[in-house]
Amino acid sequence: MITLLTDFGLQDEYVGVMKGVIAGISPGERVLDISHQIDPQDIVHGAFVLEAAYTYFPVGSIHVAVVDPGVGSERRIIAAACGGHLFVAPDNGILEGILGDGTVSEAVHVSDARYFLEKVSHTFHGRDIFAPVAAHLANGVPLSNLGSAVDLSSLVSGVVPRCRFLSEICLEGAVVAVDHFGNLMTNIPNSAIERLAGPAIQDRMVVELNETPIGRLVKTYSQVAAGASLAIIGSRRLLEISVSGGKAHHVLKAGKGSRVRVYMT
Amino acid sequence: MITLLTDFGLQDEYVGVMKGVIAGISPGERVLDISHQIDPQDIVHGAFVLEAAYTYFPVGSIHVAVVDPGVGSERRIIAAACGGHLFVAPDNGILEGILGDGTVSEAVHVSDARYFLEKVSHTFHGRDIFAPVAAHLANGVPLSNLGSAVDLSSLVSGVVPRCRFLSEICLEGAVVAVDHFGNLMTNIPNSAIERLAGPAIQDRMVVELNETPIGRLVKTYSQVAAGASLAIIGSRRLLEISVSGGKAHHVLKAGKGSRVRVYMT
Amino acid sequence: MITLLTDFGLQDEYVGVMKGVIAGISPGERVLDISHQIDPQDIVHGAFVLEAAYTYFPVGSIHVAVVDPGVGSERRIIAAACGGHLFVAPDNGILEGILGDGTVSEAVHVSDARYFLEKVSHTFHGRDIFAPVAAHLANGVPLSNLGSAVDLSSLVSGVVPRCRFLSEICLEGAVVAVDHFGNLMTNIPNSAIERLAGPAIQDRMVVELNETPIGRLVKTYSQVAAGASLAIIGSRRLLEISVSGGKAHHVLKAGKGSRVRVYMT
Repeated sequence: MITLLTDFGLQDEYVGVMKGVIAGISPGERVLDISHQIDPQDIVHGAFVLEAAYTYFPVGSIHVAVVDPGVGSERRIIAAACGGHLFVAPDNGILEGILGDGTVSEAVHVSDARYFLEKVSHTFHGRDIFAPVAAHLANGVPLSNLGSAVDLSSLVSGVVPRCRFLSEICLEGAVVAVDHFGNLMTNIPNSAIERLAGPAIQDRMVVELNETPIGRLVKTYSQVAAGASLAIIGSRRLLEISVSGGKAHHVLKAGKGSRVRVYMT
Repeated sequence: MITLLTDFGLQDEYVGVMKGVIAGISPGERVLDISHQIDPQDIVHGAFVLEAAYTYFPVGSIHVAVVDPGVGSERRIIAAACGGHLFVAPDNGILEGILGDGTVSEAVHVSDARYFLEKVSHTFHGRDIFAPVAAHLANGVPLSNLGSAVDLSSLVSGVVPRCRFLSEICLEGAVVAVDHFGNLMTNIPNSAIERLAGPAIQDRMVVELNETPIGRLVKTYSQVAAGASLAIIGSRRLLEISVSGGKAHHVLKAGKGSRVRVYMT
Repeated sequence: MITLLTDFGLQDEYVGVMKGVIAGISPGERVLDISHQIDPQDIVHGAFVLEAAYTYFPVGSIHVAVVDPGVGSERRIIAAACGGHLFVAPDNGILEGILGDGTVSEAVHVSDARYFLEKVSHTFHGRDIFAPVAAHLANGVPLSNLGSAVDLSSLVSGVVPRCRFLSEICLEGAVVAVDHFGNLMTNIPNSAIERLAGPAIQDRMVVELNETPIGRLVKTYSQVAAGASLAIIGSRRLLEISVSGGKAHHVLKAGKGSRVRVYMT
């Protein structure tokens, strides 16, 4: 199975054409979409969505992530095996969370043009390189055929902002995406909050957004009244800030980059 | 075959992840999208789109409908067999039109966690419950394994507004959705209009929107001049109000909830 | 394989229902989306997207294009074999570029209702005619069964604007679409520019948008500074006008219909 994550949108032929190319090379291969509405050229948004999604696909899946503001420049394309999954993406940070977790078994610099379309444009490597490479991987071509091994320490990193402990009792992160429901998705994992607070987290936790306290850390949306703001550990196991029955980014006038703090009282 | 109807949008990983979960449990099963752009948390919109769509899928299809403002609360999840199709949805009214037509052969309260993902979040039952349950149904698990039978009279109902006869010659309904072309989709079925008027309906029928008469009831868009408003029995066999070559919701300044009347002159 | 290109959007059940109908007639057939977000009723937009896409699908694919402002009127539906691909579309110009290239081997007027759904609405031929006809073609029904042969010269043409040489050194075309990234897609093919300028095109070429010179004709986005405008031969092998790191249609205040000139200095 091949999954696709891009910022191409669904308006143009871009995504359909990638699937056509894959079908031409690997006819029976199933292709599933993770999202094609990553905010244009937003590597951070793409990284978080991919990290949230890929483990829910069967082991052996090939994940193609094309958020690629450097298309046509000298930026490298990377293919890697990690935790039983394969990834193909530009070397621009979009894979840093996945490749940085210590489970990478192999990573190569994709460079062998035998696995590309014959004619490679300067503007659409999704069609000309990423799709055919993924299809060849699905056909059983080994990673090592695609190009030479890369040193993981040479990969672009530091692009995706991570949360940090300001003190033993205070954690700071940021909003990294706004979802379809207007929820503010942060980069603060539940695991970090648990380090702050132990199991009985809800009672003693304050969540601040842009230096303004917002509501309680709750378990379900229905715990607060309609229109009230709340913080919740979302389906990605990250802290999210929501407004019950509303759109948090409108109501709270916040968005990507807004600062979030969690601390004990 | 499994179909998906949600209000999740396509921007986030939500829909892709549901398909990944299904593929992990029922690898060969085909999954088709009905829509993922139901207006957020709008059960009525979801109900009308599902009713309009499901009969066009092969008998034996499993339809998963997740418009679920009560996720994480005590609301039940229902699975039912009806007219040769299977349905899985929250008990919030989204299935009331389908289950209310007297053809339900079996309905259960989905509660057996063996058919859920191991870890169930409070915010994303689409991934953690609906997708795996549908995949297990596709694998042949009988409905009765999912939970105990439910009394149909106990299901949430009365959520979806239906049209009514104000008199023998006047029918009142409402706009329940605005489609991609700006057409105003009402809850007035052709069958009710035929009860008003018999076969020769067009000549003697007046359609009012928000107490203002709009154009004739026509058979094709091309029967009126560009820019003119019209009423037509649409592809759902419901009354729709359109503007030829334009967007009715803009031109007529109407939308969901707008009142529609049809009467004889 | 069947591909779908429509202006139906993804909000309503329209596209899902077409796939359900296909699955009912040709159960194993794969269906891929080219786009469902063609600008509503914009035949020109649809024509350019289809021309850009279809050659990337395997030979033998069946391409269904439904941008159909004349639905319900007397406009014909055409099915044609061309360059190893099959096409089904209204006779409204959307296929004129493809059928006009001299490689059509057969074209018929689709009229045999045995290949339609039993009940054909006046407003949704995508579901009632196009989808079932494509599914029957996928099942091996020959084109000639669908209806009588049509004379190509009788087809609607002249709808899609093409670029023209104003002189031996000046080419004039227009913006025909704005893509997801805000790029201005023109109808000026690389082949025409090469006729102006031979291989060493970049140095001597000026591109004007609405009579204002914009930046150089470059090979990659990274050749200009962020925020600068540029002209580039895009992935469709057509001239595109972009703003590096920005949205050209906003920055340059241009859109569909804007005039573009390319000339030698």
